[in-house]
Amino acid sequence: VLDEERAARVLESFARQGLMRHLGAGIVRLDHGFCAVAADRRPELTQQHGFIHAGVTSALMDTAGGYAALSTFSASDSVLTVDFTVNLLAPARGAQVIAEAAVVRTGRTLSVCTLEAFVLAYDGRRVHVATGRQTLIRLTDTSDQPPPEGERP
Amino acid sequence: VLDEERAARVLESFARQGLMRHLGAGIVRLDHGFCAVAADRRPELTQQHGFIHAGVTSALMDTAGGYAALSTFSASDSVLTVDFTVNLLAPARGAQVIAEAAVVRTGRTLSVCTLEAFVLAYDGRRVHVATGRQTLIRLTDTSDQPPPEGERP
Amino acid sequence: VLDEERAARVLESFARQGLMRHLGAGIVRLDHGFCAVAADRRPELTQQHGFIHAGVTSALMDTAGGYAALSTFSASDSVLTVDFTVNLLAPARGAQVIAEAAVVRTGRTLSVCTLEAFVLAYDGRRVHVATGRQTLIRLTDTSDQPPPEGERP
Amino acid sequence: VLDEERAARVLESFARQGLMRHLGAGIVRLDHGFCAVAADRRPELTQQHGFIHAGVTSALMDTAGGYAALSTFSASDSVLTVDFTVNLLAPARGAQVIAEAAVVRTGRTLSVCTLEAFVLAYDGRRVHVATGRQTLIRLTDTSDQPPPEGERP
Repeated sequence: VLDEERAARVLESFARQGLMRHLGAGIVRLDHGFCAVAADRRPELTQQHGFIHAGVTSALMDTAGGYAALSTFSASDSVLTVDFTVNLLAPARGAQVIAEAAVVRTGRTLSVCTLEAFVLAYDGRRVHVATGRQTLIRLTDTSDQPPPEGERP
Repeated sequence: VLDEERAARVLESFARQGLMRHLGAGIVRLDHGFCAVAADRRPELTQQHGFIHAGVTSALMDTAGGYAALSTFSASDSVLTVDFTVNLLAPARGAQVIAEAAVVRTGRTLSVCTLEAFVLAYDGRRVHVATGRQTLIRLTDTSDQPPPEGERP
Repeated sequence: VLDEERAARVLESFARQGLMRHLGAGIVRLDHGFCAVAADRRPELTQQHGFIHAGVTSALMDTAGGYAALSTFSASDSVLTVDFTVNLLAPARGAQVIAEAAVVRTGRTLSVCTLEAFVLAYDGRRVHVATGRQTLIRLTDTSDQPPPEGERP
Repeated sequence: VLDEERAARVLESFARQGLMRHLGAGIVRLDHGFCAVAADRRPELTQQHGFIHAGVTSALMDTAGGYAALSTFSASDSVLTVDFTVNLLAPARGAQVIAEAAVVRTGRTLSVCTLEAFVLAYDGRRVHVATGRQTLIRLTDTSDQPPPEGERP
């Protein structure tokens, strides 16, 4: 289980992500080494066929993985994605997309997450739409905050 | 060089992507087998440090690759991303992010693109922030349009 | 469960892979949409520290995935790897490496496998050393055999 | 240009890779941040159609990338692959396979290489058969040698 301090830290950091707010995304589950992020389908999130854009799905997968890793770190450490892969299994056609990330390896420097994404289809089924892998690096004693006043981000 | 019909088709399809509009992204260069998509930094596109979110960068990379491939197809064919990979080389800290995709292999069924992303840093330099690979599938005789009236996308 | 004809077809094809013989690798489990390939550690399979080379691990992962996919195809179809990714979780230090592949999506044209690799460590534990994803293409009505006599492979 | 000491270090480490010897592979070009590894086609390196196995191609790509990175490190540092991706562009049908790796980013901890593979086809053309990306980690003050006597690798 995740202690309250770490949970608060993840939620506070997520709240600072302008993109997640802009996409209407929220953390829907958070545990030690696990994070799920979801967004409802809106016209603002679509590709040319009207389905949820793979760019939304992958942004949610990347973000979920970052917070899954951060949830295992001490409060003085920060996290950055090193790389990730996304395999699209089906069009994201439905009312909501949910990205789930689980830490499969955590080391002193690097973490690896499995990433999965699902849509809640119109008939109520949960459809597996994407699968991926993510490598992340721990930044020891590095702030998760924006650059100091006067420096442009 | 890209013929006018194909260029018009790409631009029309891009214009139907609600996400690209929502991110403020536009096609800034288009050629036969090449597409570049850019977006200016805004608070709506940021991660927790205030930098451009890797999810924006990868959404632009995926989209650029889709249209690079589509630019080589005949008008009756459509395109879907099969998978893509993103390696982040540096934080996307700057005034604009530009994703460039070039087709390196085009076959009857599958295409492969190289994906690169750059930021226009505040000092005017163009910084290489991400590199990736994308596999796409050609959908022969398949519409690039939304599902017919009455079917939910 | 896998019917006998498909199982025979997979084993016959595997036996034609000169590399697998050269690495001392064999199929240790085969099911509908699942294949495991293993090789014992020998000096011929090592990298500079004496551990099993990541190239061996990934060759076994790729091969296991190909046969996991082929096990779901009809006898007239053949398979080719489109792309794969490998995340190394730990050094492959042990007496044997085992690659396991499971089909997570099978379509008319493309299949996707999850790839995992383990070593049998010297203390008897099974250690997860690699994880990956693979995209494969079905070649309809295409022989799994070498080119006809007179054509060089 | 690569200084002699680093070049010697790379060649000595490569010579300790049992797999490279077993595959008949050798370093054919080495520069600061660049390495090419090649192997001639032999029945021992083939897949079921008689072409060079993708497992050979990817093993050579991974190895070339490792030494491209190591060529930029100081003598006290060692290197490990974190992850890599391989997109296969064409069957490896020809007399020789050559993997080329170039460092595109080198940091205090992580390096990223682009990986490309070619075959020398029977008609003398050089055919691009694979492209990929690799992330590597620098192990500071870590030996590139096998474990001490008495410990099993």
